[in-house]
Amino acid sequence: MNDGARMHALVRRLYPLCRSITGDGVRRTLEIVAESIPLEISEVPTGTEVLDWTVPKEWNIRDAYIKDPAGNRVVDFTRLNLHVVGYSVPVSATMTLDELRPHLHTLPAQPDLVPYRTGYYAETWGFCLSENTLAALGPGPYEVRVDSTLADGHLTYGEHVIRGSGADEVLISCHVCHPSLANDNLAGIAVAARLARRLAGKELRYTYRFVFAPGTIGAITWLARNRDRVSRIRHGVVLACAGDRGALTYKRSRRGDAEIDRVFAHVLRGREHTIRDFTPYGYDERQYCSPGFDLPVGSLTRTPYAGYPEYHTSADDPDFVSAEAMEDTLDALERAVEVLERNRRYRNLSPYGEPQLGRRGLYGSLGGRSDAESRQMAMLWVLNLSDGDHDLLDIAERSGLPFAAVADAADALRGAGLVKE
Amino acid sequence: MNDGARMHALVRRLYPLCRSITGDGVRRTLEIVAESIPLEISEVPTGTEVLDWTVPKEWNIRDAYIKDPAGNRVVDFTRLNLHVVGYSVPVSATMTLDELRPHLHTLPAQPDLVPYRTGYYAETWGFCLSENTLAALGPGPYEVRVDSTLADGHLTYGEHVIRGSGADEVLISCHVCHPSLANDNLAGIAVAARLARRLAGKELRYTYRFVFAPGTIGAITWLARNRDRVSRIRHGVVLACAGDRGALTYKRSRRGDAEIDRVFAHVLRGREHTIRDFTPYGYDERQYCSPGFDLPVGSLTRTPYAGYPEYHTSADDPDFVSAEAMEDTLDALERAVEVLERNRRYRNLSPYGEPQLGRRGLYGSLGGRSDAESRQMAMLWVLNLSDGDHDLLDIAERSGLPFAAVADAADALRGAGLVKE
Amino acid sequence: MNDGARMHALVRRLYPLCRSITGDGVRRTLEIVAESIPLEISEVPTGTEVLDWTVPKEWNIRDAYIKDPAGNRVVDFTRLNLHVVGYSVPVSATMTLDELRPHLHTLPAQPDLVPYRTGYYAETWGFCLSENTLAALGPGPYEVRVDSTLADGHLTYGEHVIRGSGADEVLISCHVCHPSLANDNLAGIAVAARLARRLAGKELRYTYRFVFAPGTIGAITWLARNRDRVSRIRHGVVLACAGDRGALTYKRSRRGDAEIDRVFAHVLRGREHTIRDFTPYGYDERQYCSPGFDLPVGSLTRTPYAGYPEYHTSADDPDFVSAEAMEDTLDALERAVEVLERNRRYRNLSPYGEPQLGRRGLYGSLGGRSDAESRQMAMLWVLNLSDGDHDLLDIAERSGLPFAAVADAADALRGAGLVKE
Repeated sequence: MNDGARMHALVRRLYPLCRSITGDGVRRTLEIVAESIPLEISEVPTGTEVLDWTVPKEWNIRDAYIKDPAGNRVVDFTRLNLHVVGYSVPVSATMTLDELRPHLHTLPAQPDLVPYRTGYYAETWGFCLSENTLAALGPGPYEVRVDSTLADGHLTYGEHVIRGSGADEVLISCHVCHPSLANDNLAGIAVAARLARRLAGKELRYTYRFVFAPGTIGAITWLARNRDRVSRIRHGVVLACAGDRGALTYKRSRRGDAEIDRVFAHVLRGREHTIRDFTPYGYDERQYCSPGFDLPVGSLTRTPYAGYPEYHTSADDPDFVSAEAMEDTLDALERAVEVLERNRRYRNLSPYGEPQLGRRGLYGSLGGRSDAESRQMAMLWVLNLSDGDHDLLDIAERSGLPFAAVADAADALRGAGLVKE
Repeated sequence: MNDGARMHALVRRLYPLCRSITGDGVRRTLEIVAESIPLEISEVPTGTEVLDWTVPKEWNIRDAYIKDPAGNRVVDFTRLNLHVVGYSVPVSATMTLDELRPHLHTLPAQPDLVPYRTGYYAETWGFCLSENTLAALGPGPYEVRVDSTLADGHLTYGEHVIRGSGADEVLISCHVCHPSLANDNLAGIAVAARLARRLAGKELRYTYRFVFAPGTIGAITWLARNRDRVSRIRHGVVLACAGDRGALTYKRSRRGDAEIDRVFAHVLRGREHTIRDFTPYGYDERQYCSPGFDLPVGSLTRTPYAGYPEYHTSADDPDFVSAEAMEDTLDALERAVEVLERNRRYRNLSPYGEPQLGRRGLYGSLGGRSDAESRQMAMLWVLNLSDGDHDLLDIAERSGLPFAAVADAADALRGAGLVKE
Repeated sequence: MNDGARMHALVRRLYPLCRSITGDGVRRTLEIVAESIPLEISEVPTGTEVLDWTVPKEWNIRDAYIKDPAGNRVVDFTRLNLHVVGYSVPVSATMTLDELRPHLHTLPAQPDLVPYRTGYYAETWGFCLSENTLAALGPGPYEVRVDSTLADGHLTYGEHVIRGSGADEVLISCHVCHPSLANDNLAGIAVAARLARRLAGKELRYTYRFVFAPGTIGAITWLARNRDRVSRIRHGVVLACAGDRGALTYKRSRRGDAEIDRVFAHVLRGREHTIRDFTPYGYDERQYCSPGFDLPVGSLTRTPYAGYPEYHTSADDPDFVSAEAMEDTLDALERAVEVLERNRRYRNLSPYGEPQLGRRGLYGSLGGRSDAESRQMAMLWVLNLSDGDHDLLDIAERSGLPFAAVADAADALRGAGLVKE
């Protein structure tokens, strides 16, 4: 099974679980992820103060339905967990359609689809259903049941860390709080987990920290508990909507010109893609890029947040995402990691005039190669711009050469003692 | 009567007066303006040294004409004051057409029109007439009369000040030295006076100083007598050509990126307009933006300086300007003032992660509003960029939101104690 | 004879000489150049260490040929010196075609043309011939002869200096190491020599240093022997490919915004031309712009390095270059010199408001001139921007006025005591 198929299988397996910002759905999701990459799980008690927020009560749900007078479940949580509004409080009542209506959410413009709705801090309840289902409902009365608990408990998140040789970290963050929605964000979870597998065992310079946490409150909790670690984050990516068939979209960090921003611009060049400026909306880049932290964290998606009609509806199911798209996202991420790992700032040790490359076998040894000229150009560019102000990525950008060619040239020059870090 | 009609009536009333850089025409103009807004009048004696200049002699004129052999006034100052060259010295002579010709100015390419000419520092005299009139003149002899005085006196300018809560000032300057020319600059005078009326009684942060002064020497005189005040000028606009039917044109200050420049770029966005870079020519921005002062003063016109065929001719009459155009100029100025008044630089007091807006009623209270999402976005933008480096106008520019929406969001956040100035 | 014809005659006279990076061809070339401009000749011994390089052995050649079995010279150095690979070691042998083939170089895609090849540091030998000639060769045996010497000697370069009033220098550098190739670089040599003639006897502010040296090793040698002089080089141009019929191309210095870069952008404006960013390839700008020196040296060519099919082939002969093209290159260079000479940074001594130009005869004296308005505008621009931050070239760029008009205005203002350097 290739990586695309593996990721798609993971999406299908995670899809039925009812996740929210707390509860057993998140725990079970992290258990399944932990089958392929070890996770350190954190459980943060209800009531814990985290930055400006407080960890909420934990929500769990076993069943929820609306039964018609004939006893048929016309809306049934066990068939699709989007049917219940996230964080709905327990209900057990008999109601007419008129009484029930304020608690029903539909998408009139997409009458076949069930919307995704939550009410984390509202202490309310509700059901989501298709406009067509609603239209077919008689006056009732209906048996209405939400078998949930909202009580002190914990907020759960998981971390996977791949140690590099240095203390600087790369953060890969994805939200794990959405129930049966495949692109948002099971695809992101699957790609992140697979990236971790690809990096396992490699010699790395950076430490890679994968955070699987509920959106907003999870990122805030992680930040609150890692204030001392934040300064180590040199680069980061929030990963979401990683599996639809649209082209890749990179949203810049708040800084706009962070190395991670330049890396993705380079990696995506030459293929269909979109680069967007930072906005304080979307996924957890909102938290990482809040002005107090202002971390160099961008966001990688395919079609971004709210940019496709299936977004936050029952149509965002496992068929909406493709193995090929997830593999493509994974490849782009992996290439970004390769650039981050190799990007360095060298200093030319022989900066007065060109050093004589031929004498060192760097010119002659190239004579027989078909890519000789490009390698020679790469060496001249590295020598010319290695003045302490330019890193290899700058040199690749300015020369128009592929980053790998520039990095290879730098390695050759370092081997010859002509540049040093 | 609406503001447009009021301004047009003022233009018609001021039109017949013979203004120049000194003299009773300016005094009478300021008296009429003072009927709607109080003016403090300054009279600066001839010979006063002002910066690199000296206040010139005062010029007044009662009559001027060229009479043909039959005694008909073929050129008659009392019909149109453009007919005499400004600052013409007294003349009383009989001359043939050939002798007279060096003193006659026409516009051969616009044969119906009378040009506007002056000779402030030349101690000469002359007449302006249409090419057609000139062509019809016989050989003479002609009785030539200029009944003027050029003698020690004063240079006159007027100021209207609206006090704000702070010491910082906004300068609105317009020239009052042109005789019967409507767009240049009776329309500017009318719009400035009406803006002062609109601002009267408002709670303002800035002090608004309206300067009605002769072009060049008037601005230089004002600057010379207010050297200590100049540092208080935080923003300024030179207002001219405010009534023709062309689109608005904003000319940037010499600095090019002053707040006033950004304000007008924002205010004019989304409508037909032109933004031009500073040039050291045009109106009194030349003086305010001389390198020693380098004040943040731009210039607002409709069709700019010398940009329309009626410019500096008898065709720039009250019919050339429209009430609607003046009202449009006034509205743009007023909107610029609104932005200046509300533009501030806030600091997010809860900069680590997003603050929990829902807890403070800033999220929940928006639920029922149709513009909720835009207001919420505005709050997130203000929070994200209120780091001491960005003012609200920056935030409006970067977010693409209307300035007022951003400023409203900032007010709400300040009310909740989340940001402070 | 005009300058174009003179330059073309020089190209034709230099064309037959067999130049290389050392040897009598270079010496004879410099002797001929010295007939029109005096040259100081430097002879640097083999083995001298120059920066990271060592001056190589000196190469000279008297004859070289391949004779067929009938005794005919099928490849003959005396007919075209490109036929022998530069720096070929002596050979005297009889070989079959098969044995000879590894030493033969052709251009299969341009079967009529003979390529230019060198092997300076390879201690090998070879012949260049057309693909058509090669195709007609029988199996042999052939008498093969290279009558050359490769022995301790010297590297030769020449300098011509025109003293200016100050110590700052302008460097004009061109390579003299290519054998019978007209555009690359006899045209450059001819244009440089003619520019020196044009500048002779002028009052100049800069000292102009013309360097005629072999490519790469020559520039490196010059730099090594002039380390203390390098800091005096305020501007420089590497001149090459100066005679083909393509439009002018200016390649920016490594700095990208050096004064010389702005000068050429200004001089070339309004005519067909290309501006390219620096690349660490091409001609001796590679050495002058190495990061340790980072001199403000650009490169002026017509069609650049390797940009035309005749490049480095026997088709780059004297008919390939034209007198008109060389004259055009020369004119552009001369205009660049004019801008460099006149470009200064002035300070407005009357920076508060506009000074009264009329009082000083700067306004009145212009009244009768047809170019009065442009001269007046130029004065206002110089006054407005002479704040210590802008030089006259900045002012020309920003105002859109020709540099000469701005410089004339500055001279007038300086004469009136209104600006000083």
